[in-house]
Amino acid sequence: MDAQIIAIGSELLTPARIDTNSLYLTERLARRGIDVVRKVVVGDDQSRIAREITTARANSQVVIVTGGLGPTLDDLSREGAAEALGREMHFEPKILGWIEERFKRYNRTPSENNKRQAFVIDGAEILENPNGTAPGLYFEDASGALMLLPGPPRELKPLFETECEPRLDRLPSPYAYHTHSLRITGLGESDVDQRIGPIYAAETRAVTTILSSPGDIQLHVRGRADTTDDARSIAEAVAARVSEELGSHVYAQQNESLETVVGRMLVERGLRLSLAESCTGGLLAERMSRAPGSSNYLFGSFVTYDADAKTSWLGVRRETIEKFGAVSEECAREMAERARDAAGGPGRAVGISITGFAGPGGGTEEAPVGTIFIGLADAGETRVLRRHYGGDRERNRSMAATVALDMLRRRLAPQS
Amino acid sequence: MDAQIIAIGSELLTPARIDTNSLYLTERLARRGIDVVRKVVVGDDQSRIAREITTARANSQVVIVTGGLGPTLDDLSREGAAEALGREMHFEPKILGWIEERFKRYNRTPSENNKRQAFVIDGAEILENPNGTAPGLYFEDASGALMLLPGPPRELKPLFETECEPRLDRLPSPYAYHTHSLRITGLGESDVDQRIGPIYAAETRAVTTILSSPGDIQLHVRGRADTTDDARSIAEAVAARVSEELGSHVYAQQNESLETVVGRMLVERGLRLSLAESCTGGLLAERMSRAPGSSNYLFGSFVTYDADAKTSWLGVRRETIEKFGAVSEECAREMAERARDAAGGPGRAVGISITGFAGPGGGTEEAPVGTIFIGLADAGETRVLRRHYGGDRERNRSMAATVALDMLRRRLAPQS
Repeated sequence: MDAQIIAIGSELLTPARIDTNSLYLTERLARRGIDVVRKVVVGDDQSRIAREITTARANSQVVIVTGGLGPTLDDLSREGAAEALGREMHFEPKILGWIEERFKRYNRTPSENNKRQAFVIDGAEILENPNGTAPGLYFEDASGALMLLPGPPRELKPLFETECEPRLDRLPSPYAYHTHSLRITGLGESDVDQRIGPIYAAETRAVTTILSSPGDIQLHVRGRADTTDDARSIAEAVAARVSEELGSHVYAQQNESLETVVGRMLVERGLRLSLAESCTGGLLAERMSRAPGSSNYLFGSFVTYDADAKTSWLGVRRETIEKFGAVSEECAREMAERARDAAGGPGRAVGISITGFAGPGGGTEEAPVGTIFIGLADAGETRVLRRHYGGDRERNRSMAATVALDMLRRRLAPQS
Repeated sequence: MDAQIIAIGSELLTPARIDTNSLYLTERLARRGIDVVRKVVVGDDQSRIAREITTARANSQVVIVTGGLGPTLDDLSREGAAEALGREMHFEPKILGWIEERFKRYNRTPSENNKRQAFVIDGAEILENPNGTAPGLYFEDASGALMLLPGPPRELKPLFETECEPRLDRLPSPYAYHTHSLRITGLGESDVDQRIGPIYAAETRAVTTILSSPGDIQLHVRGRADTTDDARSIAEAVAARVSEELGSHVYAQQNESLETVVGRMLVERGLRLSLAESCTGGLLAERMSRAPGSSNYLFGSFVTYDADAKTSWLGVRRETIEKFGAVSEECAREMAERARDAAGGPGRAVGISITGFAGPGGGTEEAPVGTIFIGLADAGETRVLRRHYGGDRERNRSMAATVALDMLRRRLAPQS
């Protein structure tokens, strides 16, 4: 069984926007053993949309259309799909009711255009969208399944998982699949690939996919067999061998973020996290506060961007900065200790600090651009890591935050 | 004149990789008034590649194929294009010479496979690639231009600019183009569309594109005329009418972020920014520190996630939180004033605060989930905005940061 993804929207044909929904959909489909064989992006043009859907359905059993379900006149996915299927559309009062209810919550009334979203292709199932006004549509016939989903990821993702995946699972497929995911940090993609290549090459019943972002790698091992139990055994056996090879670089045996793992460890140890950030400018705090419930472990962060903020807010000694500079091991050490002490002190809080030259400007002879110090202060010895990356500001900030989280994870891990 | 881009490579159909070359190509083509009307990604399959090229050439005058020119057996763009064009290929010793020379520099010898890269479609021009072994190919006939370019961006970009653009400029094109961009905040996409629709509908010589993200809209107006000067006049006239209609919601007459605009205003007024964030968890500071040089205006941020951090770090009075709650107008007011005072006080610093229930948990009767207070304290009267969004945590955080920046922009704007 294979799939094609058609992303609709003239904005996706500008230099400013890219279709990233297809990455998410590809990953979700891969878990079910459905490979994406083609992706298309077209503008808001009914006959083009119709043509793309017809072509895709002629070649693949699953076709997913994203975007073009909004209220404006150039949102034409519904019309294009109806044209491709040779079907009419009808007005569905239930949908208008949902839309009106949604607007009422914000004390607004729907515009005339919003009524367009209440039209449904004859024979299609309506997928209720709790996060937006555009419902999804699902259509199935002898040539396979056609799904129309809203473009915004926060609408598309829950709709796909709750409404589409159960329907996909009911499509006839000769195999059962199981995906085991691992998360890895502290190794580059090519290092990982080189070390684990022999492991996954030895098991032809599993397909391994590596997704990498700076400092963080997702590894998905998909096992295929006649039964789900066998598929699970295959995937888990490969994942176990990979975990053994990569050791403590593997930080999760499921697809969860480093922030989530570290947050759980902090709760288990009854510690709260207190940060002192300079070059990351709040990025680490922002990441640690993304998950709901993060108030259970995040106390706060001193984002001391200016040197004066480091001294007056955090209490870093002026002599330290004058003597060693704000980007120094000594400054990172004091920042971490002050942050810890401002949140209850050793035993109650862990302090993490980040100070560096993210670039492109700044830097000194001792600490050129790209130099970053990361400090950790808890009830034990305060440690400071020194790292050096290139001149890319965004990457430096992101890597610094990831390395800080990994340093904390290793400190909190049970000693083996 | 319009274009289609076909990206070749099975790796681009995995969750790990996305075709970003098309963004670059779209931008370069737009400057020449060539719109990309369709993008396709297909795997390494000769007949699929041939089919895509045939379809694209039937509808667009310019077709660009990226990737699939490597030495391995699954690099099949050359073969696919030859099939689509109904032409043979021939071996070109000159190319093998380039490849051998390139390998010599790294003390290596080409493999047998590299010889595949020396095959050329009959009638195509060879585009020498100084950054890799795969030369590009350029073919032109009555139905338009077909370009085959290597996938790695550092090879593709110089090759496109030095070899393809001059050839594109020789293609007959009747028009000149100019694009004027605007940035808008504080209005939803459908509001903007409704208000400015009549303006851009009245000027058929301009094409208007709206790109929206939560709280922020990019509007690109591209004028078309016989000369560049006329094209500029057309685009600017539409942009001026849009600006008049939307008034102070337009925050930039070029494609720059709200952070950049606010940063510049702070520098002009000799003020530094000091933040006190709760539910945004550092997001506002992170956004304000993204741009290089942000240390010229960002002093720091107290990310006081825990109520105790609000009192002990910032100095918010305990009674305020006990009486009104941490999510209240009173708390937001004190947070903004304390942040301002911690960075030099009125006249020297502006304090901005954000406190709210980002969700999905939390909330009280007076301040249900989604309620956010944003405070601003400078040398004048302290103001607090109350906003309410839905239950989506990520959106709430993002909207709160954007509204805070816009509040600051309006305060700093010269009074008209």
